[in-house]
Amino acid sequence: MDAGELWKRYRRYFCRVDSLDLSLDVSRMHFDEAFLNSMEPFMLKAFKDMDALESGGIANPDEKRMVGHYWLRAPQLAPTKEIGQEITATAESIQKFVSDVHEARIKPPNVPRFTQALAIGIGGSALGPMFVSDALGNPSTDRIRMHFIDNTDPDGIARTLESLKGHLHETLVMVTSKSGGTPDTRNGLVLVSQAYSAASLSFSRRAVAVTMPGSQMDELAAGEAWLARFPMFDWVGGRTSELSAVGLLPAALQGIDISGMLAGAAECDAATRIHDTRRNPAALMALMWYAATDGKGKKDLVVLPYKDRLLLFSRYLQQLVMESLGKQLDLSGKRVEQGIAVYGNKGSTDQHAFVQQLRDGVNNFFVTFVRVLESGGSSAEVEPGVTAGDYLSGFLVGTREALYGNDRQSMTITVPRVDARRIGGLIALFERAVGFYGSLVHINAYHQPGVEAGKKAAAAVLALQAKAHAALSNSPQTASQIAEAIGDAPPEETVYLILEHLASNGRARMTRSADPGDTTFTRA
Amino acid sequence: MDAGELWKRYRRYFCRVDSLDLSLDVSRMHFDEAFLNSMEPFMLKAFKDMDALESGGIANPDEKRMVGHYWLRAPQLAPTKEIGQEITATAESIQKFVSDVHEARIKPPNVPRFTQALAIGIGGSALGPMFVSDALGNPSTDRIRMHFIDNTDPDGIARTLESLKGHLHETLVMVTSKSGGTPDTRNGLVLVSQAYSAASLSFSRRAVAVTMPGSQMDELAAGEAWLARFPMFDWVGGRTSELSAVGLLPAALQGIDISGMLAGAAECDAATRIHDTRRNPAALMALMWYAATDGKGKKDLVVLPYKDRLLLFSRYLQQLVMESLGKQLDLSGKRVEQGIAVYGNKGSTDQHAFVQQLRDGVNNFFVTFVRVLESGGSSAEVEPGVTAGDYLSGFLVGTREALYGNDRQSMTITVPRVDARRIGGLIALFERAVGFYGSLVHINAYHQPGVEAGKKAAAAVLALQAKAHAALSNSPQTASQIAEAIGDAPPEETVYLILEHLASNGRARMTRSADPGDTTFTRA
Repeated sequence: MDAGELWKRYRRYFCRVDSLDLSLDVSRMHFDEAFLNSMEPFMLKAFKDMDALESGGIANPDEKRMVGHYWLRAPQLAPTKEIGQEITATAESIQKFVSDVHEARIKPPNVPRFTQALAIGIGGSALGPMFVSDALGNPSTDRIRMHFIDNTDPDGIARTLESLKGHLHETLVMVTSKSGGTPDTRNGLVLVSQAYSAASLSFSRRAVAVTMPGSQMDELAAGEAWLARFPMFDWVGGRTSELSAVGLLPAALQGIDISGMLAGAAECDAATRIHDTRRNPAALMALMWYAATDGKGKKDLVVLPYKDRLLLFSRYLQQLVMESLGKQLDLSGKRVEQGIAVYGNKGSTDQHAFVQQLRDGVNNFFVTFVRVLESGGSSAEVEPGVTAGDYLSGFLVGTREALYGNDRQSMTITVPRVDARRIGGLIALFERAVGFYGSLVHINAYHQPGVEAGKKAAAAVLALQAKAHAALSNSPQTASQIAEAIGDAPPEETVYLILEHLASNGRARMTRSADPGDTTFTRA
Repeated sequence: MDAGELWKRYRRYFCRVDSLDLSLDVSRMHFDEAFLNSMEPFMLKAFKDMDALESGGIANPDEKRMVGHYWLRAPQLAPTKEIGQEITATAESIQKFVSDVHEARIKPPNVPRFTQALAIGIGGSALGPMFVSDALGNPSTDRIRMHFIDNTDPDGIARTLESLKGHLHETLVMVTSKSGGTPDTRNGLVLVSQAYSAASLSFSRRAVAVTMPGSQMDELAAGEAWLARFPMFDWVGGRTSELSAVGLLPAALQGIDISGMLAGAAECDAATRIHDTRRNPAALMALMWYAATDGKGKKDLVVLPYKDRLLLFSRYLQQLVMESLGKQLDLSGKRVEQGIAVYGNKGSTDQHAFVQQLRDGVNNFFVTFVRVLESGGSSAEVEPGVTAGDYLSGFLVGTREALYGNDRQSMTITVPRVDARRIGGLIALFERAVGFYGSLVHINAYHQPGVEAGKKAAAAVLALQAKAHAALSNSPQTASQIAEAIGDAPPEETVYLILEHLASNGRARMTRSADPGDTTFTRA
């Protein structure tokens, strides 16, 4: 296509959300009118599915749950008055709690105020909060400094605690777990509260829980009289919980404008609720995913925001997209193995790294550029007439062109700046695109059976670990011998891996052989 | 395959580097003896190619350069005495400079010592240093606190400077650019040195250059009498420069054991130099990449280290693998569009995110687990007999098993702990696997023509920007009209994107229309 035709195509498919000043350009994707027309009946079905979801239908049939993240920013649209009130009351209680913390009406014993906050959570309880904290934070104006524990790695937990050294007494701890039983989060809670005890500090006077009312963690927090408890709702999934208490509480503590985030999401929702594919950027984006991947995940989605503040956006989207769409069965139970792989980092940094492959190498992806119009920072010239921001902009435009020249597809989302409203809008845009795409490929985008299965697999390993540990004796045994001692024919390889782990952590002794089958273990 | 056979397969292909206590398990990859045998002639060719490279052959034919990163940790193997001496002298000068900084023999004016260091660099001059800093740093024992500027985003640069507020006078700035002309790095240098001027602080008395002798930046640093200059060598590429001054200087300043890193890399090099495929983990890994991707990048490499400290490993490998292997032409000039896409984050965090898709969804990947045996941190029990580290270990083993159960491939690298020697070893392992794979698929793994082309494309956009800016007048013009005024028929779409950028940054006025073709621009 020559430059003139490209410009016509750009204008023809240009899609803009005026209220947010956010636009989507899909002109450099491979699709034509025939494709859009052929998909229209399916898109209409997707619109209907979304309407049903938003009116309180059981959109997550496997878990028999409603899917209500859109209500969080439009409580008036909730299917019952009670739900609407719960949403409003929670948002108000967060604002009140945070203003009490900022004004030191709620404060730790013996010091003027909380200066640090530590968020413990994993998956949806960490990725959104970390993304928003980094996107909208400013070290010199943040009200509170944020820290995160998002894993069950004791070394990682120790390092985070080390960075809080001397500040533990003025650190507010938020523990976020929907079910209240996620072991990774529970483990973080145990080790952090032990650190408080070790420092002779009351943990409960600095702790806040975000969890489902009545959960194990909710009961613990109530029993120990933590500072506050905020509800998670049954009808909000982890990966779409950024605009629930999960994301709003830490953001507000940091000093981020959470009303702006909610407003931006609501504006994007309003613009993507319309049944007009070409004017609906979420619909258009879902269709582009379909066109690029053949509706089967045949290409990867590479996220390239040209803005340091959006570095964690790809990691956030990795969960949102892959956990939602990566499903074995479709809604009729047919084995489909769906999904779209997502990765990315930021431009122009990546042009000095993996963009080499995007330009020249295996053509197994399509790019989503995020273009931020206002450069921010210093507008000093780095050479006559040119700023650092001009370079950033020039690299984006040049790379988009170069990819096209090599037959690589891309689309571009443009926003004026990275602020609370646009972050809310971007989250809402992708949430709805994921929902539409789920309908197009006929899957449940709202459950995560593999995550549950993963937890069970780990529990089985831990159960076997207890048996393997018990089967150790003073005489050297191989993994096979210990497997035999355990009985019930556990897999020898798993027993070996467990014993190697125990031996490396002082709970067994190991004498290595070149052949792992000959390596022996004794009691520590 | 049943558990008994799996265990046999594990033992049969188990590959261990005794000196480093590092092992590779490829048993859960899809390959058989026939594959290994059929690949042996190609692997022998790869060994020969590597030998030629290590003896100083022109292994990067397009740029007519030697490829010498292996000499950095074994100067005695360098092809000439002079090169060996350069390496040794540079390492010694780094150690001396760093000890002078640590002991405050080199210090900023009027304060006792440097407490912070700011590294400015992009691509290979940032990804390795950031990875190592995070992997081996400890907030309470680091000798100097590290900060990074790795982009030409003025907002990002401003934010980094904001985080250095009150410390600029005691901050050492390292500027790293091989050619000395990378615009992103130059832009960072310009804005940072302006910040020093604005604070009435001498920049040159706090600045250090890492660049090729004689480069533009080297001359600048010499002319302004910066604190020190360290050489980059023509025969070391950016993505393999972590064990050159590029990576060693910042790591040493932070207090990281760079001798340990060099020793670990040297040990891994020794173990992967042998011409015995089954005992050489780099060779085995390259073959697995070939088996999994059909030698054509058909599957993505997902890196899953179960350890917080290795979070940035995947981003580092993304560059190392994709920039090396993502090539359009093979060595005979045939269009091949090679490469392997790399992404990842960390376990068990990712199990609550995209591992859902890995388990259940589109089967377009193979996993490389990194297993760290010693848990570190607190060994307190989180439930009877179980530690947080047991969970981390259990999640890895369980996920590996679950992936296998769903016909997903994985391999596992095991190290005892994350320390300087193992980080050096891991870097060396992947560097050599990339080199072997490059030979197997017959490409130049040591150049990056797309990166150069990207720089040119951006330069063209900036040149057009100057013209578009000059063509603005007091009467409103559309992008097309301005394109016409510029002459030589520049692409109207590019002109539009440039004008939108200028208007968003105070250098034009814009009146938007629903159709971007009707949007008009005037002089600001």
